[in-house]
Amino acid sequence: MPELRRDAISGRWVIIATDRATRPTDFVRPKEGVQDRDRCPFCWGKEFETPPEILALRPAGSPPNTPGWEVRVVPNKFPALRIEGVLAPAGAPLFEHMEGVGAHEVIVETPEHETHLGLLPPEQVAKVLWVYRERYLDLDRDPRFRYALLFRNHGRSAGASLSHPHSQLIALPVLPRRAEEELEVARGYFADHARCLYCDVLAAEQRAGDRVVYENEDFVAYEPYASRFPYETWVVPKRHAASFGELRDEELLEAADALRTTLWKLHAVLDNPPYNFIVHTAPYDAFPGHFYHWHIEIMPRLTQVAGFEWGTGFYINVVPPEEAARQLRAAEPLPALLASPETSSLHGEVGGE
Amino acid sequence: MPELRRDAISGRWVIIATDRATRPTDFVRPKEGVQDRDRCPFCWGKEFETPPEILALRPAGSPPNTPGWEVRVVPNKFPALRIEGVLAPAGAPLFEHMEGVGAHEVIVETPEHETHLGLLPPEQVAKVLWVYRERYLDLDRDPRFRYALLFRNHGRSAGASLSHPHSQLIALPVLPRRAEEELEVARGYFADHARCLYCDVLAAEQRAGDRVVYENEDFVAYEPYASRFPYETWVVPKRHAASFGELRDEELLEAADALRTTLWKLHAVLDNPPYNFIVHTAPYDAFPGHFYHWHIEIMPRLTQVAGFEWGTGFYINVVPPEEAARQLRAAEPLPALLASPETSSLHGEVGGE
Repeated sequence: MPELRRDAISGRWVIIATDRATRPTDFVRPKEGVQDRDRCPFCWGKEFETPPEILALRPAGSPPNTPGWEVRVVPNKFPALRIEGVLAPAGAPLFEHMEGVGAHEVIVETPEHETHLGLLPPEQVAKVLWVYRERYLDLDRDPRFRYALLFRNHGRSAGASLSHPHSQLIALPVLPRRAEEELEVARGYFADHARCLYCDVLAAEQRAGDRVVYENEDFVAYEPYASRFPYETWVVPKRHAASFGELRDEELLEAADALRTTLWKLHAVLDNPPYNFIVHTAPYDAFPGHFYHWHIEIMPRLTQVAGFEWGTGFYINVVPPEEAARQLRAAEPLPALLASPETSSLHGEVGGE
Repeated sequence: MPELRRDAISGRWVIIATDRATRPTDFVRPKEGVQDRDRCPFCWGKEFETPPEILALRPAGSPPNTPGWEVRVVPNKFPALRIEGVLAPAGAPLFEHMEGVGAHEVIVETPEHETHLGLLPPEQVAKVLWVYRERYLDLDRDPRFRYALLFRNHGRSAGASLSHPHSQLIALPVLPRRAEEELEVARGYFADHARCLYCDVLAAEQRAGDRVVYENEDFVAYEPYASRFPYETWVVPKRHAASFGELRDEELLEAADALRTTLWKLHAVLDNPPYNFIVHTAPYDAFPGHFYHWHIEIMPRLTQVAGFEWGTGFYINVVPPEEAARQLRAAEPLPALLASPETSSLHGEVGGE
């Protein structure tokens, strides 16, 4: 019998098809090739092919926009929004608009052309998260921006147009609809219970245990009870904090460990699936931080999303989250060869110059 | 300069990339083949390959589940929900669930294997809409159902697993999140203005004119001001009615004309694109019908939807709706050969027996 489950975070209902035995191998798809290294604008030696860098982790004294960096942030060459402009809402009541003011940045996560966050050493992933936080906080200083979206597309069918590992950051002068919705539900829950909804769900998931994928000192990765997508996985900090910008230095390595272990497990069980992840965080505007709780939502793109999911916000998930969690928990650990920073090609590979 | 536009219906913001000149030919994609006729369970002569029919338009006296029908409704062979069961919400507060009770039906729109609604004669499309309404109203009699979703997937990349023209109907014991959201916004607008939001938007679109694609006596097809997708088109009845079930007999042919003309224009301009459409309607529960307004949302699937659209409800549309509407208005009319019911193959093609 299929089951209807209600997601406490969003209020949405999901059909969980508990009676079809779906295995990871059911999600076969054509292999995606890696793009040609010679034409990649994100490799060492191609720094002149992107707009000038905003921030880079590079050896002391090395000049900007030259090889040698470990993580590099540049403006998106084809930005969805433009940084110049004034926020002036305009238009008739039913046709409101404003200039497309915002920031659109690309975070190149490693000089390695063919890898991804799940395969990198935890120290490298921690550097990426440190850079995320730097940019997140820096854009907060611009009073025009109300929200920052940090996200990652992996694989062409998940929307990645370049295969070199990178994430994106979009700063917006408005709140995305889903962010508003999450805030509304969380505010309501706090009003009723005087507790953070996310903290309560996290505690309940830890008690139940059957949807937990991984846990370390500061973070838990679990399949949400009403997962929209097969193998949807959330990485949630144990310490209550509304904004991603509150991530502490001493938590960076634990955050990196939880994120890359989860991504590695997805990689191992689903054979390098296309996926998106999104950092869900509180808006920039000062507001009481007691009821929201930042986290990362990872959504593998295994199934074709059909008409009614699109238009309705109502999903059918063919893999029960308990089953997905069981498989992901059982996934073999990342081979030591890859996990060790010493053997990573990070410091051994030099670009074109 | 890109523009941020706010959709009055949902409250969502959309980035309209007004500065990239996108032409229909930019959306190239591999051609999708039509599936083998011999293995199609929806053709005449294959009636035994589906569950027994629920309803069929067929010559008087012809027995059920035999060829000769014009439109045929059968239960989905692989239903997302099951019709048997009792609605009993259960589970802990944060883990609410209930049995997956619901109806999942398939409406086979024509005996023709290789065609679609945009290519059929208006009389045939009117028959399909009549059948939609019959099933919609019949399922309303079941007190367990709160909402009915009528939708259509065209093309594999839009989620259609069989290419023979068909739509689907899912009756749900819960309200989809987007339906709730639309109702909330519409209720608020009515409270403020004592008028239907959709009626006001429709009137404003007719006055503006530059996003209107097609209009007949009873219906208007237009590109929404804050379209999420390139060439997104809505077909909206001029007469205020909250529920699709209120569609009148004398409006059927006008509704069919508006829907098929729009689908034909999309077919002509975008070379038979994959698309989804969804009938947005009021919930079954009796409630004041003054503030909601049923309509059909057509979403061509031309671009890869990336990570941040998924998780945020925030969209980037690379084709300004005014430009899309201009192209669709200019599309040549459906050739008379196809438009005339006499020359349609509907009555000339007989299945396997």
